[in-house]
Amino acid sequence: MHPPEIDEVDPKHSTNEVDPEVAPDISEEERLARQLSSHKDRIKKTKYATRKNLVLVNTGIGKGKTTAAFGMLVRAWGQGMDVCMLQFIKAKTANWGEEKAARKIDIEMIQLGDGFTWLSEDIEKDKELARTGWKLCKEKILSGKYDLIVLDELTYILKYGWLDWNEVKETLDNRPNRTHVAITGRYAPPELIEYADLVTEMTEIKHPYHANIKAQKGIEF
Amino acid sequence: MHPPEIDEVDPKHSTNEVDPEVAPDISEEERLARQLSSHKDRIKKTKYATRKNLVLVNTGIGKGKTTAAFGMLVRAWGQGMDVCMLQFIKAKTANWGEEKAARKIDIEMIQLGDGFTWLSEDIEKDKELARTGWKLCKEKILSGKYDLIVLDELTYILKYGWLDWNEVKETLDNRPNRTHVAITGRYAPPELIEYADLVTEMTEIKHPYHANIKAQKGIEF
Repeated sequence: MHPPEIDEVDPKHSTNEVDPEVAPDISEEERLARQLSSHKDRIKKTKYATRKNLVLVNTGIGKGKTTAAFGMLVRAWGQGMDVCMLQFIKAKTANWGEEKAARKIDIEMIQLGDGFTWLSEDIEKDKELARTGWKLCKEKILSGKYDLIVLDELTYILKYGWLDWNEVKETLDNRPNRTHVAITGRYAPPELIEYADLVTEMTEIKHPYHANIKAQKGIEF
Repeated sequence: MHPPEIDEVDPKHSTNEVDPEVAPDISEEERLARQLSSHKDRIKKTKYATRKNLVLVNTGIGKGKTTAAFGMLVRAWGQGMDVCMLQFIKAKTANWGEEKAARKIDIEMIQLGDGFTWLSEDIEKDKELARTGWKLCKEKILSGKYDLIVLDELTYILKYGWLDWNEVKETLDNRPNRTHVAITGRYAPPELIEYADLVTEMTEIKHPYHANIKAQKGIEF
């Protein structure tokens, strides 16, 4: 296994890979054999697959939406790409681990919010912040300067109706070929799910909060 | 909103936050008011909450398991913590974005695998690699040198029976107080889910592979 081959195919994804949960009866050898053949099929198929700029969405009520987007950002940065993250909800004054890390390695990360929007007691101010924030996102997306832009927690702005989906769609439609856009947040609207190329839902199975354990530095923030 | 308050509570998590999907009838103002009150309750509660070292699991067949763990690793590194990632399946010779990024910022990342285990044509060799890999994980976990250790794709080794859960459990039981451990991979065994403090399932809603689009640099690897 070497990088060019990895380039051809996403090895973790398979439509006909044999899931041991689904097919517990076959032997391990048989499963491995089938997986190998399925993998080879996919390599063959993807030789003719198209490259395109993607819209990716991390949604759901579980953890890891922002963290996975941040991980992707750092990874793309590792590949020498031009990246940027715009965060809608987090306050400018907070000092999150992401921010600290981004500062250390000089990744562009911009906080557009003024605290947690849903905690505000002045909705009009939040709407205005959201509109101003979106303007900057639009500029960045259309600038042609980025390979990957993360719009962190944009979904809330859409959900609350402070920004119209058609405006987002138009910007995404007109973005340069090189620019992938990743959007995170709960309640991704159906139009966005429909539009996106890749959608992952994070579901919470278990959370330490239930066991009365505090949010911890380096883990939650 | 300032860091000490964030420290007190995970603002994204709530057990009684009002989900607009579930309660569409209440007004936006009412929802915000209830969320604010729920948030204040939680801050109060968590004042008495306990800090402890956590075991976190990212599982499910969707994307973002490794990426979210990697994001958490970089974030913890941003907080000045000592971190390390050990990867079971990825080959030493591959040149992934995570690796490149980790090298650039001097985060310890160790590949224990020799290619994709489930693609191997020599199962005995894979078993041996898994056993040797686990030994190193155990040393790192018990060393007391780390705040966060990610065991990437350890679940497969457990699933295939190449490593006994009780051995993992014993190591986790005996780990130093400072050490959080995050484990990623499909098919997390029930014992691990039961043992873990936080479990997130990543579900694939949509994948560009289905639209015959190639895996892309900076996005998938």
